[in-house]
Amino acid sequence: MALGCDVRLPRSSSHATDSMETISDIKTMQDRCLQARAAGQTIAFVPTMGFLHDGHLSLLQEGRKRADLLVLSIFVNPTQFAPGEDLDCYPRDFERDEALARKAGVDLIFYPTAEMIYPSGYATYVAVEGPLTTTLEGACRATHFRGVTTVVAKLFLIVQPHLALFGRKDFQQLAVISRMTTDLNLPVKIIGMPIVREADGLAMSSRNVYLSPKERQQALSLVASLRQARSVVRAGETEAKTVLASIRQRLVQESELVIDYVKACHAQTLDEVSTVDAETVILLAVRVGKTRLIDNQLLAEEVN
Amino acid sequence: MALGCDVRLPRSSSHATDSMETISDIKTMQDRCLQARAAGQTIAFVPTMGFLHDGHLSLLQEGRKRADLLVLSIFVNPTQFAPGEDLDCYPRDFERDEALARKAGVDLIFYPTAEMIYPSGYATYVAVEGPLTTTLEGACRATHFRGVTTVVAKLFLIVQPHLALFGRKDFQQLAVISRMTTDLNLPVKIIGMPIVREADGLAMSSRNVYLSPKERQQALSLVASLRQARSVVRAGETEAKTVLASIRQRLVQESELVIDYVKACHAQTLDEVSTVDAETVILLAVRVGKTRLIDNQLLAEEVN
Repeated sequence: MALGCDVRLPRSSSHATDSMETISDIKTMQDRCLQARAAGQTIAFVPTMGFLHDGHLSLLQEGRKRADLLVLSIFVNPTQFAPGEDLDCYPRDFERDEALARKAGVDLIFYPTAEMIYPSGYATYVAVEGPLTTTLEGACRATHFRGVTTVVAKLFLIVQPHLALFGRKDFQQLAVISRMTTDLNLPVKIIGMPIVREADGLAMSSRNVYLSPKERQQALSLVASLRQARSVVRAGETEAKTVLASIRQRLVQESELVIDYVKACHAQTLDEVSTVDAETVILLAVRVGKTRLIDNQLLAEEVN
Repeated sequence: MALGCDVRLPRSSSHATDSMETISDIKTMQDRCLQARAAGQTIAFVPTMGFLHDGHLSLLQEGRKRADLLVLSIFVNPTQFAPGEDLDCYPRDFERDEALARKAGVDLIFYPTAEMIYPSGYATYVAVEGPLTTTLEGACRATHFRGVTTVVAKLFLIVQPHLALFGRKDFQQLAVISRMTTDLNLPVKIIGMPIVREADGLAMSSRNVYLSPKERQQALSLVASLRQARSVVRAGETEAKTVLASIRQRLVQESELVIDYVKACHAQTLDEVSTVDAETVILLAVRVGKTRLIDNQLLAEEVN
C-alpha cells in the first residue's frame, strides 16, 4: 500500500513537516508533547533504535496518516541488551536517519543519550512477568523484555502518544508491549504492522548489515522455511509437530545455521499449540554465523 | 496551617463540588480526566486505601487549594499486602468516606474493584529496585513496595494528575513513589505533607482502630520516643547510635511493644547515617500486640 501526501488526514495549521526538529532533552520533549495534546493535536509515535530501514519507514508512513504530530524516537536502549550482546557495535547512523525521517514527514525526533534516560540513581523497572516474557526470546535473554518494557513505558510517558506503531517482525515484543500497555492503563493505542521484507524475502532488520554475502544467502532459508510451512498448512496439515519438522528440515540444509527455536504459538498468549489454526503464529530464531535472526509467520496472514 | 475555602485558588466554571461523583469504571475515569486536562483544568490527586482520617483530609485540603479538579481514589490494594497480612480485615467504610470526601470538596472519587485493577491475565509490575525498597519496611515485606509502585503508576495513568499528595507518615513510601515518578518520567508533581497526629500525639493511621485501649496507651511511646530523640539532638548530640539508643530505651519501657526497627537515615536516599543532621530522618516500626505501627521524625522539622 503506497501512501502519498494526498491521502493524509487534515492536519492542524500549527504543523509544518519542513521544520522537523530533533530534541534530546526529556523535559523539552515532554512539555512539547503535552502542549500539543492540550492544543487538541493527536500524536503518533514510532520508537526505534535507529539505523532506519523500510520496515521503520512503513511505520512512519502509517503514523503520518493517523495523527497530527508524528514523533520518532531513536535510542539504542542499553537495558534490553545483556552483557556480551551487540550494544556497542549496534549499527548507528543518525544523519542518515534524520534525512529519512524528514522525508517520511516526521515532526519531532526524540534522540536522548543513555545518561538522560537512565541517570545516576535510576532504579525503576517495568516488567511483564510470566510466560509471555520467559518463553522464546525471553528464554535465552532473561532481562531483555524488562529493558524493552521499561524504556517503552518511559518513552510513552515522555512522548504522550495517542497511538504507537510497532512492526510484527518482533512479534513477541509487540505482544509484551501490548500486555504492558493494557495492564498499566496507558492511554495509548498499540498498532502492529506487517513485516517488511527485502526483494528476496529476508525480513528487514538493522542487524542484517552484520551478514556476510554467504550468510545473507543462507539467511533466506528463514523465510523459505516459513513459506514452506504455510504451504504445508494450506495443503491440510494441522499437526504443529509436522509443520515444525518441515521447517527444521529446511533450515538444517544450510551448514552455517544454528536453530535457537522453531515454535507454533497462539498469536495473543504465545502459548505453544499442538494443533495449528488461523490464530497460530510460527516463530523462529536462528543464528547465522555470529548474527542472530528472528522471523515469523501468522498463519491467518498472506505470505508477504 | 488551617486552610478554609477562602484561600482556594479560583476554579473553572465547569467545576461543582456539590456534584461529587463516584466512578468505578477505569475507562470512564480516565476519559473524564483526559477531557479535563484537554479543557485546561489542573488535577490534584490523593490516592488512599479509604477509611479516611484527618491525615487524608489534610491532603485533600491541600489538593483542593492547588488544582481545579480534586480526585480521591479509594482502593485497598491487594498487591501491597503479603499473605497473612491484614488485607481481608483492613478497615473499610465507604459511606463514611464518601461523606467526608464531599465535605472536603472532592470532585471525583475513583472506587474500583480489585478485579478491575488486576483483571484476569494481568502480568505487569513496576518496581523500584535496590536499597530504597529492601531496607526498613522492605526488609520484612519483600513485595510490598512493588505492589505500591505498581498501583500508584496505574492510578497516575488513569487519573492523569498534575500533582499528587502523600503523607509523610509513610515516609519510605513517599521516597519510593518519588523515585518511581522521576525515573519513569511521569509528569506528576509529588507533594509530601506533614504527619497529622491525634491530640495525644499518636500518628493518625487507619490501623489505629485495631488497638485496644491499653495498646493505644502504649502506642504513645512511639511519638514520645521521637520527641525525646529530638530533644537529645537539640541538646547537641550528633551520634546516631546514642540518639537511637535513647529511643530504644524509651520504647522498651512498654511491656507490649516489640521493636521491628529504629533507624537514622538520610531523608532522600534512606541510607543509614552514623551522624545525624538536618537531613536526617528517624524512622521506627513497632508491633503493639498484633498491630504494627510506624512513625518518623524529620530532624529539620518542628515536632508536631
